[in-house]
Amino acid sequence: MIPRYTPADFAQLWSAERRLSTWLEVELAACEAMELAGIVPQGTAASIRDKKLVLDANRVDEIEQTTRHDVIAFLTHVEELAGPPARWLHRGMTSSDVLDTAFAMQLRDATDLLDARLRGLIFALRKRVEEHRRTVMIGRSHGIHAEPITFGLALAGHYSELVRGVARLAAARSEISVGTISGAVGTMAHLAPEIEAHALSKLGLRAEPVPTQVVPRDRHAAYFSALAVIATAIERLATNVRHWQRTEVLEAEEPFTAGQKGSSAMPHKRNPILSENLCGLARMVRAYAGASLENVALWHERDISHSSAERMLAPDATTTLGFMLERCRRLVEGLVVYPENMRGNLEKTGGLWASEAVLLALVHSGMARQEAYVFVQRNAMKAWRHEGDFLSNLLSDTDVVSRVGEQKVREAFSLEHALHNVDALIDRALALEV
Amino acid sequence: MIPRYTPADFAQLWSAERRLSTWLEVELAACEAMELAGIVPQGTAASIRDKKLVLDANRVDEIEQTTRHDVIAFLTHVEELAGPPARWLHRGMTSSDVLDTAFAMQLRDATDLLDARLRGLIFALRKRVEEHRRTVMIGRSHGIHAEPITFGLALAGHYSELVRGVARLAAARSEISVGTISGAVGTMAHLAPEIEAHALSKLGLRAEPVPTQVVPRDRHAAYFSALAVIATAIERLATNVRHWQRTEVLEAEEPFTAGQKGSSAMPHKRNPILSENLCGLARMVRAYAGASLENVALWHERDISHSSAERMLAPDATTTLGFMLERCRRLVEGLVVYPENMRGNLEKTGGLWASEAVLLALVHSGMARQEAYVFVQRNAMKAWRHEGDFLSNLLSDTDVVSRVGEQKVREAFSLEHALHNVDALIDRALALEV
Amino acid sequence: MIPRYTPADFAQLWSAERRLSTWLEVELAACEAMELAGIVPQGTAASIRDKKLVLDANRVDEIEQTTRHDVIAFLTHVEELAGPPARWLHRGMTSSDVLDTAFAMQLRDATDLLDARLRGLIFALRKRVEEHRRTVMIGRSHGIHAEPITFGLALAGHYSELVRGVARLAAARSEISVGTISGAVGTMAHLAPEIEAHALSKLGLRAEPVPTQVVPRDRHAAYFSALAVIATAIERLATNVRHWQRTEVLEAEEPFTAGQKGSSAMPHKRNPILSENLCGLARMVRAYAGASLENVALWHERDISHSSAERMLAPDATTTLGFMLERCRRLVEGLVVYPENMRGNLEKTGGLWASEAVLLALVHSGMARQEAYVFVQRNAMKAWRHEGDFLSNLLSDTDVVSRVGEQKVREAFSLEHALHNVDALIDRALALEV
Amino acid sequence: MIPRYTPADFAQLWSAERRLSTWLEVELAACEAMELAGIVPQGTAASIRDKKLVLDANRVDEIEQTTRHDVIAFLTHVEELAGPPARWLHRGMTSSDVLDTAFAMQLRDATDLLDARLRGLIFALRKRVEEHRRTVMIGRSHGIHAEPITFGLALAGHYSELVRGVARLAAARSEISVGTISGAVGTMAHLAPEIEAHALSKLGLRAEPVPTQVVPRDRHAAYFSALAVIATAIERLATNVRHWQRTEVLEAEEPFTAGQKGSSAMPHKRNPILSENLCGLARMVRAYAGASLENVALWHERDISHSSAERMLAPDATTTLGFMLERCRRLVEGLVVYPENMRGNLEKTGGLWASEAVLLALVHSGMARQEAYVFVQRNAMKAWRHEGDFLSNLLSDTDVVSRVGEQKVREAFSLEHALHNVDALIDRALALEV
Repeated sequence: MIPRYTPADFAQLWSAERRLSTWLEVELAACEAMELAGIVPQGTAASIRDKKLVLDANRVDEIEQTTRHDVIAFLTHVEELAGPPARWLHRGMTSSDVLDTAFAMQLRDATDLLDARLRGLIFALRKRVEEHRRTVMIGRSHGIHAEPITFGLALAGHYSELVRGVARLAAARSEISVGTISGAVGTMAHLAPEIEAHALSKLGLRAEPVPTQVVPRDRHAAYFSALAVIATAIERLATNVRHWQRTEVLEAEEPFTAGQKGSSAMPHKRNPILSENLCGLARMVRAYAGASLENVALWHERDISHSSAERMLAPDATTTLGFMLERCRRLVEGLVVYPENMRGNLEKTGGLWASEAVLLALVHSGMARQEAYVFVQRNAMKAWRHEGDFLSNLLSDTDVVSRVGEQKVREAFSLEHALHNVDALIDRALALEV
Repeated sequence: MIPRYTPADFAQLWSAERRLSTWLEVELAACEAMELAGIVPQGTAASIRDKKLVLDANRVDEIEQTTRHDVIAFLTHVEELAGPPARWLHRGMTSSDVLDTAFAMQLRDATDLLDARLRGLIFALRKRVEEHRRTVMIGRSHGIHAEPITFGLALAGHYSELVRGVARLAAARSEISVGTISGAVGTMAHLAPEIEAHALSKLGLRAEPVPTQVVPRDRHAAYFSALAVIATAIERLATNVRHWQRTEVLEAEEPFTAGQKGSSAMPHKRNPILSENLCGLARMVRAYAGASLENVALWHERDISHSSAERMLAPDATTTLGFMLERCRRLVEGLVVYPENMRGNLEKTGGLWASEAVLLALVHSGMARQEAYVFVQRNAMKAWRHEGDFLSNLLSDTDVVSRVGEQKVREAFSLEHALHNVDALIDRALALEV
Repeated sequence: MIPRYTPADFAQLWSAERRLSTWLEVELAACEAMELAGIVPQGTAASIRDKKLVLDANRVDEIEQTTRHDVIAFLTHVEELAGPPARWLHRGMTSSDVLDTAFAMQLRDATDLLDARLRGLIFALRKRVEEHRRTVMIGRSHGIHAEPITFGLALAGHYSELVRGVARLAAARSEISVGTISGAVGTMAHLAPEIEAHALSKLGLRAEPVPTQVVPRDRHAAYFSALAVIATAIERLATNVRHWQRTEVLEAEEPFTAGQKGSSAMPHKRNPILSENLCGLARMVRAYAGASLENVALWHERDISHSSAERMLAPDATTTLGFMLERCRRLVEGLVVYPENMRGNLEKTGGLWASEAVLLALVHSGMARQEAYVFVQRNAMKAWRHEGDFLSNLLSDTDVVSRVGEQKVREAFSLEHALHNVDALIDRALALEV
Repeated sequence: MIPRYTPADFAQLWSAERRLSTWLEVELAACEAMELAGIVPQGTAASIRDKKLVLDANRVDEIEQTTRHDVIAFLTHVEELAGPPARWLHRGMTSSDVLDTAFAMQLRDATDLLDARLRGLIFALRKRVEEHRRTVMIGRSHGIHAEPITFGLALAGHYSELVRGVARLAAARSEISVGTISGAVGTMAHLAPEIEAHALSKLGLRAEPVPTQVVPRDRHAAYFSALAVIATAIERLATNVRHWQRTEVLEAEEPFTAGQKGSSAMPHKRNPILSENLCGLARMVRAYAGASLENVALWHERDISHSSAERMLAPDATTTLGFMLERCRRLVEGLVVYPENMRGNLEKTGGLWASEAVLLALVHSGMARQEAYVFVQRNAMKAWRHEGDFLSNLLSDTDVVSRVGEQKVREAFSLEHALHNVDALIDRALALEV
């Protein structure tokens, strides 16, 4: 979480104050559940709530210097502010009940922030898909011209991938929307399933079946892995923007604002810096997922080795992804598209993209596929070496013309035919449930 | 896939022969769909099927020396064996249609092998949970005695985690059960959605909405990440076995077979080598997930950089996890449990595990929590330093006894009370849908 | 860099102010070199230096809102403060000259902070090695008692590993102590090797031979990988502290300060939380190394995808390791050692640790090794099952006694013999050059 | 190690036979050292050597089914073949002495195979650097045209990086050229430093100062990290080949052999598949480095969790890198370069690459840098939008011409000036010590 890449809502979500107030929320929900269960005096939680405590993170830090234990420092501070009723808080509970349950709430809220941004990006992308449904461009495999597509179709591939991200995010949210109020080593020795059920339902969480004190970290590993997959989807889109913007290609370009400067040395530069930035950030989110996988194999009922890593990676991973989604949406919205350059590039190879259609025509005429391949390839390779354009080469190759006739050769170069299923494919993407 | 860690069914699944026969299956399914669509002569696929081709992986390799293209080499070999009808194969398709669709089938089948093994492990674990439902042991946080649990409860935590693995595996299976028959850059220029639908349904796969020639690799990244989470769950269990078997703890032990030797130097050794082996293998499965995340951001409509990585990691990740699941099942089944040692360890601290119950009794008597904490801690720390046992210390601490009475102090040391919710917790685990 | 884990000197090193002042240092060094070369008016740098500029990071941020370029914003701000002479700054240079050269300086300075801390840790460890040179404990392989060692020897292993860290850190420092003053795409079109040489020598850096505008990121990948290896060395030591402190083992314990509380629920707890914390942080440093490896393969002469990742990982990796080294030193210094518990544990197995010596005695008597193994193992396994202690078992096994005699059997149990080379081994460690 | 990517010498190096023969070599070297020390009868090793044993890996596997211990199985097999003298082997040693020392020898030999290949690649690259020292091309930052370079200079950047790889490989080789003959928990209870020194010197290894039974795994983590950095250097070169070969760029192309087919669907295709393959493999080598870092923190004096991971990753990482280096060398040697396309691309932007030179001319005329920037940028952006070429725009911009005159503007477009330091930079690279 460096300021440069931290949206305000994530800054708030992961602030010390929000952490402490979420802890208090957990304590009070548990307290109310215990009141119902008759093991804490009625009205305890309400009396503390009424005080509208403003917890002071610095004071908690100060107390922690002595206790070396953050939750005890927090409870001590609450006692300072709320007086005697506070002694009923945390009854039969252990720190993990507070920490892990509150962590679940923060991660869940972070996920909601992510979900809204992801949907925003998807919505922006959908508009561009529709807009460029029929904007013809050359499709490329291996960076080499292949056959025609439309720009809308290229974007629809990214669209589908991001839509899968919504489902992954929902699954991830469900994975971690789990708390526990089960006390030391998770046995509920001084608690009860009903207390936990009541408290967690108030907090909007499910109960971890067998907490062993903590919410097990496989959930978090799955969560952060899902984030990494989504960050990587953005990386793929950003990588393609970088390709489209290359000087020789220039089929699309990042928005370049008035006053913007591309280079301190070279005033002519317009660089895809947003996309490059996104690629770099994706590496970070992936790295955090890796660390989260190492957090799972805690010793016995729990150790606390996950905690230091999570203090860093949980805010970092969610915030970075949040920033990425937002930046990516703006990138998609502002992307300047050059259909004429797309067309220009498509035409650069003198119709080489039609080689498959010619091949199929030859096969239909009765040739073996691999033999036909040789005929087509020799004409294509000549065109590649700038010895005539592909169509002319074919038309003067008697092996080819004698088999399929000039008409069939010419038909192979029909863009309309090449793209006749594109609408159906785009519709498949847009029909996906978001 | 080293022989040492490769179960026979995985060896078969990832063999060159299986790869080629799966490719042929895809080609024939597509061919039949094209026959229905009227663009390939009726009966083509059937006539090839009738030949019951036995594809020769070495011959394909030989042809590939010239073509430098594996699918073309395969098709050439099929033409060699099947003659003229083979020229209709692959019509309008591109290599990725074959490779990615076949890869999906192999991954799906691998997942089924994993699922069966995972269920076998879960079943084995379930029996041990039931068996040790009431086998009392000390719960440990940070490796330090905390409060009592039962061994069944400890296992139930692992059980729940592995059950989550079943759902993750199912989701992962669904992620990659997707093929494509869409031709170059995925536009179906010479194909049709109906052809793809027909072929894939025959193969038991769904269609990738916007393939851009390949099945996008975010699916595979999600898949291998799921495998990593499951491998890590095994690592957590194996780590705990290693802890239980430590000489000073010796609460459970790996099976040690007749004739087995623990050390070349020290004939007295019995080491948890299966568990250590599993921990090491989990690192590999995690590593493969990391590489799969780097495979996603392909250039434009596709590049083939994922292929070399997948040739290694797909067999390695699935096979290694398959081996792990099997080995872990045998480990669980054969685990030798020492309830008497568990009891002995529990009793080692002179009842320190009851400190929370004493604390709560003091709070109930009206003390502030943090003040009560100090009273209990001072008696506990004396016991820790071997100055008296904890119960005696408390009973001779007038600050304590004057507030709650001797009876309440004694009651805090009730194992029955400490464990009264354990059955409910175990039942929560066993009630999970597998 | 979260405040919790950020030592003050690292906070200062990675502050926005330090970043800007280092940039200015680079610009001025380059300016002076250009003055010497006669392409910038004499005295330009001096006149700017004389102004003792205080750069305002907020103002730079503000300007960057328009320019979208950080170095241009910085230069604009310098012009605001320093007036006309500032236009000579950055002549013929590009942003990377400033950014990468300054980054090298910051990384180099961070390395010096790390080096001092690493040496502090090594020094602390050396004292404990000496102190416990002859403190006998049982050596453990696989967590199982093996043969005797001394605690000093165990620590000496960690000592050696950390000493290797010093050399790795030095190599890493050298890797990144490299800058460039070479202008756009690194061709020095408006500069000269002499200018670069002069400027960099003033800054204490070497020149990148072929910069292609940036300092290539393989250097940084090697650097952060070295940090990861050092962090992992700390993880190994911390892992062992956690093992030593386990309740059943309790051979050493983290310092527990007055007022410290181990658990919010259980007043009796003393947990190895420093060590667990270190283990978690090691995972992060490893993760950063992974991301840095993905930063290497920039496109053509450079892209800027590494930058966003480095803005996060460079401060995070160095600071986290700095914090770890410091915390680990305090842990080592304060570690409470229980030699009597070590002795108690050693004696727990009734001398099983002598099994190898008995085996060797049998081999010397003329038996085949594997046959002798069986004799020893059967007596050991009985002891393992608490059927007699090992020595008694051996003495009543006529197969054994008839071959080597009672005297030889008894001699095998000599601790003195078992440890007679320990001093030499420790001396090998302490003789390593730090 | 899949056959497709396994050079023959690596297959041999990592074969079961080589493993066993290396073990025997270690045992015999240790035996000879013990003979000298007088604790094993003179001539034992020689008498075994004379038998020229051919170890049978299958037989060892068979025995291991019972012993569950690979080194004991090996020793048993040696006894079968060599008879009574074999009982003196392994005296006072433990498996790790054999395994880790032999592993060091295999890794060292693997490193030598890598080193030769790396030098081969460097040598090939050096020739291409010289060949294209003056082949002008546009330099690109962010994928966008920047200023001119030469192709030789671009290659010289890769050259320098690979030369750094030689030093890294040498350091890595030194890290792991370390063995141990120290017995259980590394105390040499039945051995002596002199025995170890003698045996290891015979094997060409140094002694681990404090082995704690195993050679500590930080060495291997450093080793595999170095391999990952080298693999990543290849990835960077391969990435650039992919860029150069893009249809719109086509400045260089992978060799395309007679009979090669680029696509099963599109006969016109020539794809950079070698380079893509190398990029994918680099991901694997990186992944292995990650796993090796997790192998370091073994428990106490050692556990064996590293072993299963190393059985997979050590052969895989070294072999994959070996394959990569070889393939990359062939790629470099066969790379088809198109200087005319480079020139064509350079000229595409109408001289925009000269923008910095114009900027500097304006600054020299007395303007403030940021003001001059605006003048140049407005003419550049017009050219970018195809409104006139850059030079004409400048010449008709009176703000510019009035300040510097037409002559200075024209001089800014001198290629000769732009490249006047390129030779010096290339010479810096070629002067590096390999």
